[in-house]
Amino acid sequence: PAVPGRSTARLRTFIATLTRAVERHAAAPVPGAADEAALLATLRPALAALVAHDDWLPDGLATPDPRRYRQVLLHADPLERCSVVAFVWGPGQRTPVHDHTVWGLIGMLRGAETEQAWRPGADGRLQPHGPPRTLRPGEVATLSPATGDVHQVANASTEVPAISIHVYGANIGAVRRSVWEADGTRRPFISGYSNPWVPNLWDRSLELSA
Amino acid sequence: PAVPGRSTARLRTFIATLTRAVERHAAAPVPGAADEAALLATLRPALAALVAHDDWLPDGLATPDPRRYRQVLLHADPLERCSVVAFVWGPGQRTPVHDHTVWGLIGMLRGAETEQAWRPGADGRLQPHGPPRTLRPGEVATLSPATGDVHQVANASTEVPAISIHVYGANIGAVRRSVWEADGTRRPFISGYSNPWVPNLWDRSLELSA
Ligand SMILES: [Fe+3]
Ligand SMILES: [Fe+3]
Ligand SMILES: [Mg+2]
Repeated sequence: PAVPGRSTARLRTFIATLTRAVERHAAAPVPGAADEAALLATLRPALAALVAHDDWLPDGLATPDPRRYRQVLLHADPLERCSVVAFVWGPGQRTPVHDHTVWGLIGMLRGAETEQAWRPGADGRLQPHGPPRTLRPGEVATLSPATGDVHQVANASTEVPAISIHVYGANIGAVRRSVWEADGTRRPFISGYSNPWVPNLWDRSLELSA
Repeated sequence: PAVPGRSTARLRTFIATLTRAVERHAAAPVPGAADEAALLATLRPALAALVAHDDWLPDGLATPDPRRYRQVLLHADPLERCSVVAFVWGPGQRTPVHDHTVWGLIGMLRGAETEQAWRPGADGRLQPHGPPRTLRPGEVATLSPATGDVHQVANASTEVPAISIHVYGANIGAVRRSVWEADGTRRPFISGYSNPWVPNLWDRSLELSA
């Protein structure tokens, strides 16, 4: 059977668009910053369409962990060229300052998120860069190593949960990247995922026989 | 976290080989029977390598359902160009006579399976074709609509479970195909899958940080 209680069609449609775009991108003869910008421009409206409706995330994946934010894998490309992850935030939860090393998009599904960019200052040490930005339901932000991909993200609320849908140019849970401690110390980081089981998005037998 | 108790590396390796082969196949200018035979020839040793070791299927997926054989989705291609399914047989369980409409491979992981081919006779009605074949651990069989893809499959044992790994040229659970009743009546069939959750094969954080 399919995952109970939710139509997974919206997510399947997004994954198909993502896969086609990433396969074209991987096959492009001269990968680079311009190519990546074009890819992000293609994916932005597709992710906006996905988070325009909060009716598809399986309930079993939407519950925060009171101890820390959850990184719930929804889809990994079989050649690890991209991944789709739900960040499920309890009230007041936040990431450390971290990088990604690959392109990414963040679409807000439920609640709101605050993002603070960090960039190297004159002394080479990371410092907050610009004002924090708030992402509201339906909004999409992008990030790219070409323009700086170090940030800290938090649930904008200390009272209600929040859920955002993240898309990355790799199997992000297996990428060797970095977090920075409060004192500026850099530490190696491989995030993994919070979920040992991924929803079966591919059982379309009920809708096909309807 | 990753699926508990098993290394998913063998399955990930197979899925990568499968994906590369299927993407090349999908991009081929003249799809056809020869192209399909070449694809099957590429995939056969890869599947044989996967089922040469019975140490990777997550325990939670390997338990038979006493009521009927289980079709456990392990991987679906995001563009539905292929899928990998574990058939988990209780003692004495069998499929109806059925077709596939797409290419397939079957690799025996645990226990043994009996396959009987069915082909149209002089009167146009399906009848058993040739002797039944037994598939033993480590062995791989292929099937293709080009050479006839109607068969009936059963656990060769009435006493112990069996598990085989099936690979198809589509999201097989969503393919419109056919089963035949004992009286020869053809009936539309969309198999679906038995599992609402698929193993997360992509959390490599533990092995990467080891
Ligand atoms: Fe981030
Ligand atoms: Fe079959
Ligand atoms: Mg390609």
